[in-house]
Amino acid sequence: MTEQPAGQSAAPPPNDGEDVYGLSAELVFAVEEALETGRPEDAVQYVHDLHEADVADLLESLPRDDRARLVDALGAAFDPEVLPHVDAAIREEVIEQLGPERLARLLSALQSDDAVEVFEDLDEEFQHRILTALPRAYRHVLEESLTYPEDSAGRLMQREVVVVPSAWTIGETIDYMRAAEDLPDDFYDLYIVNPKHHPIGFIPLSRALRARRPVRLTEIMETDMKTVPLSMDQEEVAYLFRQYGLVSAPVVDDAGRLVGVITVDDIVHVISEEVEEDIMKLAGVQEGDLYNAMLDTTRSRFPWLVVNLATAIAASLVIGLFAGTIEQIVALAVLMPIVASMGGNAGTQTVTVAVRAIAMKDLTEATARRFIGKELLVGAVNGILFAALTGLVAWLWFGNPAIGLVIAAAMVVNMIVAGLSGTLIPLGLERLGVDPAIASSVFLTTVTDVIGFFAFLGLAAAFLL
Amino acid sequence: MTEQPAGQSAAPPPNDGEDVYGLSAELVFAVEEALETGRPEDAVQYVHDLHEADVADLLESLPRDDRARLVDALGAAFDPEVLPHVDAAIREEVIEQLGPERLARLLSALQSDDAVEVFEDLDEEFQHRILTALPRAYRHVLEESLTYPEDSAGRLMQREVVVVPSAWTIGETIDYMRAAEDLPDDFYDLYIVNPKHHPIGFIPLSRALRARRPVRLTEIMETDMKTVPLSMDQEEVAYLFRQYGLVSAPVVDDAGRLVGVITVDDIVHVISEEVEEDIMKLAGVQEGDLYNAMLDTTRSRFPWLVVNLATAIAASLVIGLFAGTIEQIVALAVLMPIVASMGGNAGTQTVTVAVRAIAMKDLTEATARRFIGKELLVGAVNGILFAALTGLVAWLWFGNPAIGLVIAAAMVVNMIVAGLSGTLIPLGLERLGVDPAIASSVFLTTVTDVIGFFAFLGLAAAFLL
Repeated sequence: MTEQPAGQSAAPPPNDGEDVYGLSAELVFAVEEALETGRPEDAVQYVHDLHEADVADLLESLPRDDRARLVDALGAAFDPEVLPHVDAAIREEVIEQLGPERLARLLSALQSDDAVEVFEDLDEEFQHRILTALPRAYRHVLEESLTYPEDSAGRLMQREVVVVPSAWTIGETIDYMRAAEDLPDDFYDLYIVNPKHHPIGFIPLSRALRARRPVRLTEIMETDMKTVPLSMDQEEVAYLFRQYGLVSAPVVDDAGRLVGVITVDDIVHVISEEVEEDIMKLAGVQEGDLYNAMLDTTRSRFPWLVVNLATAIAASLVIGLFAGTIEQIVALAVLMPIVASMGGNAGTQTVTVAVRAIAMKDLTEATARRFIGKELLVGAVNGILFAALTGLVAWLWFGNPAIGLVIAAAMVVNMIVAGLSGTLIPLGLERLGVDPAIASSVFLTTVTDVIGFFAFLGLAAAFLL
Repeated sequence: MTEQPAGQSAAPPPNDGEDVYGLSAELVFAVEEALETGRPEDAVQYVHDLHEADVADLLESLPRDDRARLVDALGAAFDPEVLPHVDAAIREEVIEQLGPERLARLLSALQSDDAVEVFEDLDEEFQHRILTALPRAYRHVLEESLTYPEDSAGRLMQREVVVVPSAWTIGETIDYMRAAEDLPDDFYDLYIVNPKHHPIGFIPLSRALRARRPVRLTEIMETDMKTVPLSMDQEEVAYLFRQYGLVSAPVVDDAGRLVGVITVDDIVHVISEEVEEDIMKLAGVQEGDLYNAMLDTTRSRFPWLVVNLATAIAASLVIGLFAGTIEQIVALAVLMPIVASMGGNAGTQTVTVAVRAIAMKDLTEATARRFIGKELLVGAVNGILFAALTGLVAWLWFGNPAIGLVIAAAMVVNMIVAGLSGTLIPLGLERLGVDPAIASSVFLTTVTDVIGFFAFLGLAAAFLL
């Protein structure tokens, strides 16, 4: 009783092999070949049994021309559920090809949160053309969603909620659900509202199923409920879900009325995205960079490199101050990158821990002082160890104990500076309301380069000449 | 009808303010003060209404002595659910304090997956002492879990599953659930098994609730089910949940029998952890570093810094080859870090995108060639732009156009090398079965430093002397 791998179909099964789940390279190649040798119907056949998320991956994996051919070949069989799964850069291309009328039809088949996700990325003119092609009720939902801030709970929520009045029993609730036509596809909690439509509690479905028909909802509902305001940032919402192990949470407007629900499947994506963003920011890359066109990628990475050029030039200016010293002892030029580089690496370790700890709310006012103290000590201890190591290497290499002592002293200084600035820079940026992920590493390497070169060359100028 | 913030209690409510959810710094300080001024009963009072995850955060935030005092003061009121939420380094401390008998009692109150999570981190002797103190059935569960590989589905799953035979109707199922005593606290899907106990389908609870009593389970069950083998790595399980939007998945043994279930709340943590690990590995830090003791942190960061020292020395050796050239033109020493540093930064951008794309299965055999080609071009274009910029700066600074040309040429070379090695290094490591997150950046900076210094100083030696 093993499960059929995705992609098993009437045609030869190309999605087979090591990975039982997900898209195989063989399938991608088979689809490519079918599309490029004029057999689009075979490609459609291969796609037929794939999960929508795998179809999205397939679209992302195909070369541009093949992607257009596949969308073309799928025609009316194009599954609207695929769209929210496609990377934004690729989605733009696909949507361009579909045109506003077809897109409007596809969107209206989606749950409201998925439709908003696709819709919010479109340019204004395209949005307008779609709105006019949509049924009125649906248009209203999309228009309203745009009034909430980007990345807020309002954008993330779905409008389809199962809401029951507080006077009902389990039996009445079950009868209502059996009869109702417009419930969401999947839901995990029932929300109980008072006459003002304020949520006053929830019942997990597993509990509802086990209760007997005459039981009143208010008897078994959970009142310790985490409600989410419309404007809450999605990062904060993700924190809530992770911290409290939620599967769904009610969204309320300013008046406290229940207006929607956020479910864990959306949050799973937010969690990946938020951490992903931090990795990317630490390296100065934009999210979604993978699928951007070459020139977009070049353009988006340029500013970060400009900032780094400025940093490098600042370090060079410091070296320039000691050009005379280097001219007399060329060994200094040979050794000087070591101190700066070790400071940069040690500092990056600290910055990384700090940035993530801040994001996870583990590094707060209450713990900051202890963290700084610890990193300072770690820097000092590793500084002394590497001072000994590097000093020895320099001594043996250039046969001059004095040069070993100078590099050792500079190493201790720079490693302590690295530990200190690795904590103070992200904490300071956070306090200033700047995202520590985006700016910390550039500030850090500026400090460790400048101090690294200055300490080493300065000590050399003072003691070796 | 706004919700009560967590931590609201009979005592003055310290967990109030900006953040409605999560632990406030005020609460941490209030607890600290209560513990240090001999009012442990106040501290217990503050903790009383906190969610278990917030209590875990509180334990993590307190200084070591206060933590011990709080655990002491809580006594029998210590909530076992707190344990799985506590960071491993801190948990070790708390467990040490609790002792094996009390820990055994606490563990047996937990769901199996949570108990395993706490248990698997203990040292062998402690594990043994706990096992002897546990009821037999429970002991068996823990012992068996240790036979599965670390970070596998077997460790992650809970044994408590709602399983129903395929011959039943909805009505029979509901009656069974109303009567059963030993069901899990929360569940989201019903699993239907055949007489061999193989899962043949599942029914989301929302669908079960809406079906009428006489409906047969097999009529409404979903058969397109993602089953998870016991040995599947948790990273792969997380991929499944994210890709297919699952809330729970059945775990099967080698014979295909249903042995447990993995739920999305566990996966939310795995997803954070896995991406978190990649960030940390890219910077050469261990996960959980934040709460490690100072010396553990120092020790764990040391090897990475040693590798980086070796890299830095390799770069210095390259510089050493051109010591004679630098002696004649000291401007080279001033400018040389720029080329190496820009290559390192550009390469890190590429490595970061590649490492994450590999982890997310977006960068595969099918897309590798296109990705390499694109990064090569991005490197070349940015190389030319920064060559012009840097060349100009060098020319103006030292009044020598030749030096500008040399640095410009070296920049183009190093940026192309950065783009190429930024893709080839992680892809090569992945193919060799080495985690690209852990080793890519060190290889990369070795390449960009060595090539950067070599190209710049080599061209200078050839054309400027």
